[in-house]
Amino acid sequence: MALLFSNATILPMDPAAGAPRTFTGWAGVEGNRLTLLTASADAAAAFRAAHPSLREIDCRGKLLMPGLINTHCHAAMTLQRSYADDISLMAWLNDYIWPFESRQTPDEVALGMTLGIVEMLLGGVTSFVDMYYDQDRCVEVAERLGIRAVLGCNYFDSNIEQVFPQVERAAGLAAAGSGRVRIAVAPHSPYTVSPENLVRGRELAERLGLGMMTHIAETRDEIRIVRERYGRTPVEHLDALGMLGPHVIGAHCVHVTDSDMATLAARGVTVSHNPQSNMKISSGVAPVETMRRAGVLVALGTDGTCSNNDLDMWEELRTASFLQKSATGDPTALPAWEALRMATANGARAMGYADGELGVLREGALADLIVVDLQKPHLQPIHDVVSNLVYCGKAADVDTVVVDGRIVVEGRRIEGMDLPDLYARVAEAVRRITTAE
Amino acid sequence: MALLFSNATILPMDPAAGAPRTFTGWAGVEGNRLTLLTASADAAAAFRAAHPSLREIDCRGKLLMPGLINTHCHAAMTLQRSYADDISLMAWLNDYIWPFESRQTPDEVALGMTLGIVEMLLGGVTSFVDMYYDQDRCVEVAERLGIRAVLGCNYFDSNIEQVFPQVERAAGLAAAGSGRVRIAVAPHSPYTVSPENLVRGRELAERLGLGMMTHIAETRDEIRIVRERYGRTPVEHLDALGMLGPHVIGAHCVHVTDSDMATLAARGVTVSHNPQSNMKISSGVAPVETMRRAGVLVALGTDGTCSNNDLDMWEELRTASFLQKSATGDPTALPAWEALRMATANGARAMGYADGELGVLREGALADLIVVDLQKPHLQPIHDVVSNLVYCGKAADVDTVVVDGRIVVEGRRIEGMDLPDLYARVAEAVRRITTAE
Repeated sequence: MALLFSNATILPMDPAAGAPRTFTGWAGVEGNRLTLLTASADAAAAFRAAHPSLREIDCRGKLLMPGLINTHCHAAMTLQRSYADDISLMAWLNDYIWPFESRQTPDEVALGMTLGIVEMLLGGVTSFVDMYYDQDRCVEVAERLGIRAVLGCNYFDSNIEQVFPQVERAAGLAAAGSGRVRIAVAPHSPYTVSPENLVRGRELAERLGLGMMTHIAETRDEIRIVRERYGRTPVEHLDALGMLGPHVIGAHCVHVTDSDMATLAARGVTVSHNPQSNMKISSGVAPVETMRRAGVLVALGTDGTCSNNDLDMWEELRTASFLQKSATGDPTALPAWEALRMATANGARAMGYADGELGVLREGALADLIVVDLQKPHLQPIHDVVSNLVYCGKAADVDTVVVDGRIVVEGRRIEGMDLPDLYARVAEAVRRITTAE
Repeated sequence: MALLFSNATILPMDPAAGAPRTFTGWAGVEGNRLTLLTASADAAAAFRAAHPSLREIDCRGKLLMPGLINTHCHAAMTLQRSYADDISLMAWLNDYIWPFESRQTPDEVALGMTLGIVEMLLGGVTSFVDMYYDQDRCVEVAERLGIRAVLGCNYFDSNIEQVFPQVERAAGLAAAGSGRVRIAVAPHSPYTVSPENLVRGRELAERLGLGMMTHIAETRDEIRIVRERYGRTPVEHLDALGMLGPHVIGAHCVHVTDSDMATLAARGVTVSHNPQSNMKISSGVAPVETMRRAGVLVALGTDGTCSNNDLDMWEELRTASFLQKSATGDPTALPAWEALRMATANGARAMGYADGELGVLREGALADLIVVDLQKPHLQPIHDVVSNLVYCGKAADVDTVVVDGRIVVEGRRIEGMDLPDLYARVAEAVRRITTAE
């Protein structure tokens, strides 16, 4: 059924659309594409006449914009949200995260993924890039909930033999699905995966035509370890192995040299900047402004809920801007518009979509869009709606979410989703996992 | 009418209550005091029997905790929210803020104050400390909306003769009111108010028995200016003038020396830490962990909506913690519990309340409390509810707000508040101010 969003403040987030950044008008959706974007009441009337059975949604007082794109998370780790905070990294891993993960079943991972996707959809995230285990089990979850996703199959040297067959299964399931879900090969990092196994991952991705993702230069310890082992920075090491290209997302890139940035830019790697995670686990401050000036494509992500502790892209938007202003001493650093582009168009390119196909409102683009209710005290008055969104917008301001032309959230509800039942199943899974021998 | 909150997860935020931090139980309110806090169904039944006409509120699946206390803001500046972002400080002041402020009327300031208080109440802020103009006009607003407040009358050398009579009027109005509103004398800062006028402010506060507040050591420029003029740090300068004491709130304190911290601790000054503002306007990172170790009482604030851009204490909670972890390189810095204490008990002490009278749930304390709906995807599962609140809690999770024993928000609505009308009046005021000659 065609959709017509009427009387909306429309923010295309499309530099090609020129100034002013917003206009009042209509957006029409046919199939999974945005086919009408207009300030003309006549054009809207013609669209209405051409689609007698369309669903019209009045957006008076509301804003229509592209959905947010979370380019790095571990959504199933919602099961471990706030499980181990305010402690040192090694205690965190040894005493909490690894024992927990060793005990959970693929069905429990799928349950955590469900909770994560529900949280993201209700917060206006229409696409996400995930990196975790049991993605062959999770394709079904993403398909069922209607979100767009790249599911990265995370591997270490220790589990590569289990994960590679999962990649093939997951890729087969995704190929047989809606087209919204893509699979990627995800070596954990250059310091936890051997050069041989990094190359095996690249070869698998090439053979299956998949993208890749990995953590890069997240901590000073990683820099030291890679330097000691290979005499190179993590970026140099990955580049020497032929691992870098436009199909690759590098999460974090906190500790990168000027030469590393030039390499990331030249290879077309997308950097997924995760400011709240970097702050919470004391990783350092990624040089986002310097990377952007060096021509690196930088997108935004939340990271997992152990190091954030939520999947809220609105908070990442403003934290990204605030952190660059704080770290550079320049209050003009990473302005609101640029932060929002990172969370929309740049995220779309990171996911492998062509320029203009996703992450902007443009006729012909995929219909991934959100309706934000501006009638909230923290969003009034409206001097500059982009500033209001980036510096004051909240996940709870998102009223309606459309992915691939289908309404998946309306009036802050996901149709068919029994939240109390979901929370009860999550509580039971967590109880089982944390009390298992 | 007495109130009984039943079947709640209760988080007293009271170190005297010991471990565990939460229990399931009942909280009873009589007049403006919390008079029952119990896990005993029998005690709840006795309370019910003693108050046949009480109002009972079922809090199953919800959490009861002290209201949040915002110890530094300029609430009426909501009119200037997102008016001038991502530009340099001098352009911000000269081209936007000062011209705007020169044109607004006291009624428009009161309207901005209304919007700010509405935003804060809906976000679980039960008390705030304000610093702005026309507070004699704003006492009525705070009284009518039911919030608890310290309204600081901000003055410079240039307007001291207008402001001092306002202080007397405001203090008279507050004294004739509910007791929830207090007035304070608020010299803008040690670099914008002369030593003579700082002392005049102190003498006025002493004569009227009022508290004080000022901005201290917010930027490097301030340090330089005060050093050049007086040969001292801002803290040393204020201390030499006898300006520091337990009735004083110093906002920011970003650039303080070890000796300054010792002085702030010795004098009993409360530091209001405003992390998002400090980040957004590139002021630097306040040494909160060092101040706390030095015995300084540190509370939390949002600052105004030009430098934040909202009045959301949940974001300040997590940003405070994240920023200390990031700046110190220590992921155990400023843990969730300590951040939440800063936003509750420490804020209460900053406002001049005795220990245990406000900012904790304790029998006999003032009944300023909030009910948080835990049935949200970003608050599930619950391994550690304090971590969930600080690292994932949102203003929109606050369901019910009680100030001084009276329900002011219920089901996320402020009774009698016509929000569309408020937004329309705000839009009209902003239009008038920004287009005035």
